[in-house]
This record gives sequence, structure tokens and C-alpha cells, in this order.
Amino acid sequence: MTILFKNARLLDNRSVYLSVCDRVISYIGAERPEGDFDREIDCHTSLLMPGLYNTHCHAAMTLFRGYGEDMPLDTWLTTRIYPAEDRLTPEKVKAASELAIAEMIRGGIVSFSDMYFFCNETAEAVIESGIKANLSRSLVSFDPAARIAGDARFAESVELVKNYHNAAEGRLKIDMSLHAEYTNVEGYIRDVAAYTKDAGLLMQIHLSETEKEHNECILRHGKTPTAFLNDCGVFDSPATCAHGVYLTDDDMEILAAKGASVAHNPCSNLKLGSGVANITRMCEKGVNVTLGTDGAASNNSLDLFREIYTASLLAKGTLRNPLLGKAGDVLKMATENGAFAQRREKAGKLEVGYAADLVLLSLDSLNTIPTYDATYTAVYSASSRDVLMTVVDGRILYENGAFTTLDIERIKDDFKRVCDY
Amino acid sequence: MTILFKNARLLDNRSVYLSVCDRVISYIGAERPEGDFDREIDCHTSLLMPGLYNTHCHAAMTLFRGYGEDMPLDTWLTTRIYPAEDRLTPEKVKAASELAIAEMIRGGIVSFSDMYFFCNETAEAVIESGIKANLSRSLVSFDPAARIAGDARFAESVELVKNYHNAAEGRLKIDMSLHAEYTNVEGYIRDVAAYTKDAGLLMQIHLSETEKEHNECILRHGKTPTAFLNDCGVFDSPATCAHGVYLTDDDMEILAAKGASVAHNPCSNLKLGSGVANITRMCEKGVNVTLGTDGAASNNSLDLFREIYTASLLAKGTLRNPLLGKAGDVLKMATENGAFAQRREKAGKLEVGYAADLVLLSLDSLNTIPTYDATYTAVYSASSRDVLMTVVDGRILYENGAFTTLDIERIKDDFKRVCDY
Repeated sequence: MTILFKNARLLDNRSVYLSVCDRVISYIGAERPEGDFDREIDCHTSLLMPGLYNTHCHAAMTLFRGYGEDMPLDTWLTTRIYPAEDRLTPEKVKAASELAIAEMIRGGIVSFSDMYFFCNETAEAVIESGIKANLSRSLVSFDPAARIAGDARFAESVELVKNYHNAAEGRLKIDMSLHAEYTNVEGYIRDVAAYTKDAGLLMQIHLSETEKEHNECILRHGKTPTAFLNDCGVFDSPATCAHGVYLTDDDMEILAAKGASVAHNPCSNLKLGSGVANITRMCEKGVNVTLGTDGAASNNSLDLFREIYTASLLAKGTLRNPLLGKAGDVLKMATENGAFAQRREKAGKLEVGYAADLVLLSLDSLNTIPTYDATYTAVYSASSRDVLMTVVDGRILYENGAFTTLDIERIKDDFKRVCDY
Repeated sequence: MTILFKNARLLDNRSVYLSVCDRVISYIGAERPEGDFDREIDCHTSLLMPGLYNTHCHAAMTLFRGYGEDMPLDTWLTTRIYPAEDRLTPEKVKAASELAIAEMIRGGIVSFSDMYFFCNETAEAVIESGIKANLSRSLVSFDPAARIAGDARFAESVELVKNYHNAAEGRLKIDMSLHAEYTNVEGYIRDVAAYTKDAGLLMQIHLSETEKEHNECILRHGKTPTAFLNDCGVFDSPATCAHGVYLTDDDMEILAAKGASVAHNPCSNLKLGSGVANITRMCEKGVNVTLGTDGAASNNSLDLFREIYTASLLAKGTLRNPLLGKAGDVLKMATENGAFAQRREKAGKLEVGYAADLVLLSLDSLNTIPTYDATYTAVYSASSRDVLMTVVDGRILYENGAFTTLDIERIKDDFKRVCDY
């Protein structure tokens, strides 16, 4: 399918023609390009911007959206989340992943990174929906003697890679995932790190999310989680590290040197009382900072526009400097930096030859007029409700409230049927 | 008009019949009430909750939404906002107020408190729209000898009270307003305070928004802004104090003893780099804490659901305790506490005999299923996009995307015509 977007305002406020052909952006310019198009879309009251990357998610946790709130973290996890997760089934994960993916597409997310269980089901939901994803099976190990040989969870990961890595014309990728330092033993971590590097895969991991886990690692290993995991080889593969609330300057330097990304989840970090990650410092140190929603249990929506806004405001407010968390910088975290974290080449920005992963955002809604500068509107004034269209690899997945690949009523019905908590 | 809401889920998760008659809630109960109704509304997939109070706003500043961003506060004010305000006209204020009111109604706001200029125009917009408001003419005085006698701005306030106070069956109230301590001289403050008390009016004021203004007052007067204004009699009338980011414990005790309210504007405070007000401490000290959006120039939307969410998360995240900023407490700030700040009797909650100021919120959208507890959904999962209906004094102002009192296309056209910055 070929599409011509006409009178499209870009983030830099230029008004252009932008054409899509064979899943990529084929032209951007002031003059109308030659040729006919399957579809012509007049965008004169909208912003055409790169699609959003949600680089830390547990999609199936939509099941636990609002399931226990305003509780101490330990009590919440042990009395609500862990017992509920024990009752997960493939059917539940499929339905919950579908709901999550629908919410993400509606909100302009074109790709997400996920750590969870029953990943086959999430993989099928990704393939069917048309969204992109880097999925990973979250690995834990508590026996001090644990190694990957003979480990059933690790075998699942390997099987997942075999069955799904680069499926759906590369839309779906399988990453490796160590849940976190505090949920794994050293031998197992070293094994997974070595396998990941040998297989040429990416790594997803939770890192220094809470002060408790950060300090307990120092007591246990004599080093920060970042330093310890680095010694184990975890960052020898491109890694996306979720949270990073308690990273030290040295930690940030390690991550920057290793080409690792930190997925900043400002809403989840606030809501769970974890704190506020210092993304300003991370950027100064050269870390690739990206944004994520975390799972719906701790947020509670999968709305990256809300994270973009919150990330910017927290950077300004907590360091009391309105020059920080600049709109363009935070949008880059949500787009180009996210594509880099997922190692998706030629993606995350609007350039000829890049993947046609696009969001059309209304500049004519009650909360987006006036628009003096489209970048400011996108970050400060707009919300996910202003998304008019989401396009992935040149395919329109969502347009004016309707989905092209998803039967939303069926998805909601399935979800309600399995959601028995 | 009489309305019967059927199968209405309340914040406490009861499913009830709720009827509206003569602008008030006439019945709440498990059984269907006797009689016929002009309208019956089945709410089985929605939450029926009290309408929201936006207790600090500058509605006409929608003109400056996104007009200069990511700038130092002083530069932004002196090079952008102040020169733009110098070019305000009654026509601009009318159009901008209409746009603001439409955005607020769409987002479930039933009443707002406002400080600005050209208040006649905002008053007319309030009357026409059906929303409630406490409007005030923002007073400033820089001449050390300034008093209210002969002051044109003060005369405007008095005229406003005469023409509009308790207009539209009490929907519209006129408050007095001193802009702030740092923009007024002592004699003038004392005069306005005395007039406000004598006239039995309410007071709106900016208070300790930035550390700079707070500390400069201490240098100037040897006391905090709260202590100084209290000495001047400002809190002898019921006051709504916007921001309160730098309030001391003593300040909070003064405000609590005087029955003053603090309008917490979490998004604006973050965005301008002012900091984070400690609402947890204020509540401990007995202050009536309410929520506000501030003007669209510093937010950038008039979305109280966003403020509710942010207020809760900031309370948890900055003090690193998920038990703070509890959903029910923050919702109370946005409803019942707001009605108290505006001294609207029998308003702000769903009880028989109370004003029928209602919001119907979808519990069946992609981001609000599942709903284990309606209060949690309203605060953490929902957003203003989930507002299905807004009712003020028993009159439906907004329903499923359509306004009953406002011609949105005319309002947007008028706004775009006058917005020439």
C-alpha cells in the first residue's frame, strides 16, 4: 500500500508532503511527489510525528490494573501480584496482551519491549495486531548452584528465540531477559549473559529500581547492581535496563560505555514510591535514555504520552529548573532512542528510507489549540486522546477510533471472561 | 428536568439508582424510586462520581498555551507572557474563556476558580455555558502609597461583585483577589482584606509558589508570606491560596486555623520548576487541600484528571511511600474540598439534597478494564478521555462528545480569529 500524507506539519513545524511505499518513508518534501497513491490523507490540522516506543512493559499485567493500590510494595507483591501471577494461564496472557496492545496502538505506540511469561501467547498477539515488539521471557534463579543447563525457563527462552525471533518480517524480535540482579544468582547470570552475547541477542533487565535492592546488592556483592552485572558480562550485549532510579555516576558511565539504554518509567517509579530517576544526569553521562510505561499494575495505563509529559515535568520540577526535560529531548527518548534501544535500524524518526512508523496527532482539539510549536504541543498540551492515526511499517493500524487489525469487542469480551481475580 | 441514573456504580462500588430533580440529587438507593423521569440513563458500564472542582485557573490564558516553553521563568514572563497580556482585549478574553470552559466541561470539571482581567467577559462565558465559577479580578499595587480609594482595578472588582455575584441562580460567584504578596504593597493589601471581610466575600491569592518570592518576603517583611498576609487580615475571609510550595509548618497551622484552602497545582509547579508542594504535611496540619490546573500557559491543559493522578503520584514518589496520596483522599481534594474552598454548600459529593454536579466515567474503555475498585480506576487508570457526561445543577452540559450549551465550532473559530500571537 502506498500513502501520501499532504499538508503534514512535522515536529519542526515544516509543512510537507510525506509518502509511504513498501513499508518505508519514500519521500518528504515541500512539492507533491510524482505518481499515484492508494490513499491520500490531508493532514492540515494535524501533526505527523514518529511513532512511540514503549521500552519497558509487562503487557499481560493489564489483568492486574488496579488490583490492590495504596499498599506497601512488599505486601502488594506478596498478597496480590505474586499469588495472582501463580494463577496465570496461556489463555489469560493472550487476552491480556491483546488488550494491552490495543491500548498501546490507540495511544500511538508502534513498538514495545516486554518481559513476562507465556511469551508465545504475547508473540501471537503481536503478530496478529501489526505492532512491533521485542519480547523476552523473564528469567529468575534462586538456587545458588543454578546454571542454565537443564533450566526449564532458560529452555523456554531459547525455544522462543527459535520460533519467533525476527518473525513477521522482523516486526517481532526476541530478547533475552534476566529479571534483575536480586532475583538471580551469579552463575546463572553469567551463563545467560554469555549465551545472549554468543547468540547476538539483546538483553532486558530491571536495574536499581528501589533503594533497597540497590543497597542490598552492595552488601551482597560489594558493588552496585550495575557494576556487578557488568562484571558478569550482562552489558556485553545491548541491554535495556528498566528504571535506574538509584544509578550512581559510575554506573551511568559503565552503561554509557557499554551502549546500554535506561528505560525511564516515571509514573511507575512515583506510584510505587521508588523515587525519581535522574535522566538529566544520565543524558550528561551519555546514556541512551528511553521511556516506558511498566506494566498496567503499577501505572495504571499504557499511555506513553503520559510518560513523556511526566518525564519532562519531573526533570524540571525535581531539579527546579524549567530548562531541563526539554520537549524535543524527551520526545527523542520516546522515539529515536527507543528504536536504538531495540536496535531497530532506520526507525524512530521521519527520514526517507526509514520505517513508516507514524502517529497523526490532532492540532485542532480543545487542548491543542493554539499550536505555536508542534513539539511543545505534542509534549505539554496533547494527550493520547489526540492520536488520530497509528501507522506501523506503512500499515494503518488505528484511525479515528477504529482499529484495522483488531476486533476490539471480541478482545474486551475475551479479557473480561478470563479476568477472574 | 428530572433524570434517573440506573445501575450507577459509585466510588464506593455500590450499584444504585440515583435521581435528579430540581437541580439536586433527590434519591440514591438500591430500589428504583417512584415516579416518571424526563430521562433515564443506564450506567451499567460506568462510574457516577461527583463533578470536579478546578480551584485555581486563569481561563483566558488558553491564548498562551505553548507560547514559549523550556525557558527560564523570568525570561518567559518578561519576553512572552507580560507583553502578550498587554495586548489582551475583552474580545480575546471572551473567546479564550469559552475555549477553556469547553475543555473543562469535556474533562468533568463542574466548577472553577479564576483570577484574571476582563472578568466581565469570562462571567458572560460562564453564564452561557452552564458551568459554575468563582471569578476574581486579580489586583496588583506597586506604589508604596497605594490604597483602594480611587484605584481603578479595585473599582472594577467592586463593579464585578455588584453585577455578577450570585448570578445565574448562584452558579457564578465573584471573589476578591490579591494577585500575591510580592505584587502588592501593605496598605493596599490591608484595604482589600478589610473590604473582602466586610463584604462577606472570598479571597483568592497566589502564595509561596516559588522559593524566591517566599524568601524575598522574609527579607522584606521579616515574616513568611503567610504570616505577613495573615497580619494584614487577608485570611479573615475564606481564602483559596494557590500553590503553597514553600509553606512552613507554622504557615500551614495559620491557614488551617483560618479555614483557608491551598489549591495544589502539581503540574504547573513541576513545569515551571517551582518544586513540589507537600500536601501530605498540609493534610496532617488540617489544611483544606484542593486541586487546580493553573492557566494553560503553564500546564498546558485544563485537565483535572491529570492533576489528580499527578498529585497522588507525587505524594507517593517524592516521599517514597506508596501509602501517601491515597486515591480516595486525592479525589476528595478534587471534589468535596473544592466545593468547600468555593463555599458552595451541599455540593461536592453524591448525597440526597446535594447539587446534582455529576460526572459519568467509562469503566469499559481500553484503559479502565478491569475495574476492581472504582475509586482506584478513577484516579490511576482513567483520564479525561473517559468522561462520558458532565452534569451541572442537574443540567447535562456534555454527553458522548457533544456539548448541549456550547457551539464548539463557533468557539474554535472565534478563538483562532483572535489568537494572533
